[in-house]
Amino acid sequence: MLCLTRPTNPAWADIALADLPALLVDHAHCEMKAASNALSLATRTGIPIKVAAALADLAEEELRHFRAVLDLLAERGITLAAPEVDTYAAELRRRSTVGGARPPSVSFADRLLVGALIEARSCERFHLLAEALAARGDALAPFYRELFACEARHYTTLVDLAADIAGDPRAVRERLSELATIEGEIAASLGTRGTMHG
Amino acid sequence: MLCLTRPTNPAWADIALADLPALLVDHAHCEMKAASNALSLATRTGIPIKVAAALADLAEEELRHFRAVLDLLAERGITLAAPEVDTYAAELRRRSTVGGARPPSVSFADRLLVGALIEARSCERFHLLAEALAARGDALAPFYRELFACEARHYTTLVDLAADIAGDPRAVRERLSELATIEGEIAASLGTRGTMHG
Repeated sequence: MLCLTRPTNPAWADIALADLPALLVDHAHCEMKAASNALSLATRTGIPIKVAAALADLAEEELRHFRAVLDLLAERGITLAAPEVDTYAAELRRRSTVGGARPPSVSFADRLLVGALIEARSCERFHLLAEALAARGDALAPFYRELFACEARHYTTLVDLAADIAGDPRAVRERLSELATIEGEIAASLGTRGTMHG
Repeated sequence: MLCLTRPTNPAWADIALADLPALLVDHAHCEMKAASNALSLATRTGIPIKVAAALADLAEEELRHFRAVLDLLAERGITLAAPEVDTYAAELRRRSTVGGARPPSVSFADRLLVGALIEARSCERFHLLAEALAARGDALAPFYRELFACEARHYTTLVDLAADIAGDPRAVRERLSELATIEGEIAASLGTRGTMHG
């Protein structure tokens, strides 16, 4: 799906849904982190205002999703635990910087591509969740189906912004392909935990 | 104004407006940091979901303001520089934790009160800006007048949330008064720079 090099184990959705409260809390954290990350990228030095504005719009949408997940938690009487370290995202960011310093526009484009890959993985997993929930006749299925479509759009937005910033669409496609290989290795190495990015 | 113990020097607005591009960039950063801070507070361990939801709503409003300031930058062809360290906010956070560890609910309430004081100071300064802009017949005056009202509301929201969390409104009022004295000392010590919190 999208640019992912390794699909998630199809058993993942059932594992994740075995503890729906924990999954929803983890999902809330992911949306919050995505909003925070987009916001911090939006104030990077010297980026064009139209890029900053697109990232602020992205942050706003992630924030609306965070708010929607909080409503789901409230309906179910679930409290929000502290966010755990997201090993998947941290490792992806770390490995994207291996190889030394790059020009600012290239390292910024990398941050956008890393964000795009995280959106692609979330997109794939929301799709798996939506299908598993629909098969159970669960009322949450349409919620995850809608988020699936949003994450696909966010993926495209971030790849387009990276191409704008780097000014070299072909180089960006090649770099996306390299990073997608790394992302696939990390996702596969983490096994099949019931977390959004586990 | 509100709970502030020391008013801003009335000359501040003219100093700040002497470099409007720098002021707008600084303002954008302040809104972004306020949104990020509200978001990170919204995922604190064990807080009631209704508190998390109120903080997420606050983050969304700060994000809309950030977006509005980006539009002002775009109209004027101003690029966004990297955010500087906000000495005022950092020092206020640091001094609010002097005196050792407190129970989690008290330290969380302190974070909310620190946020409330920053909103109160922004509220005061937006008011000064709105008046100075109106006196010049500047079209930005209504924008700052509207933000002034929003910041006043945010101040109230954060103080109310702190009282909810601490479960002791009188203790929260006393602590707010202590922190307001500290805030006044910090604001006064920073002199009159043309920044939102300088």
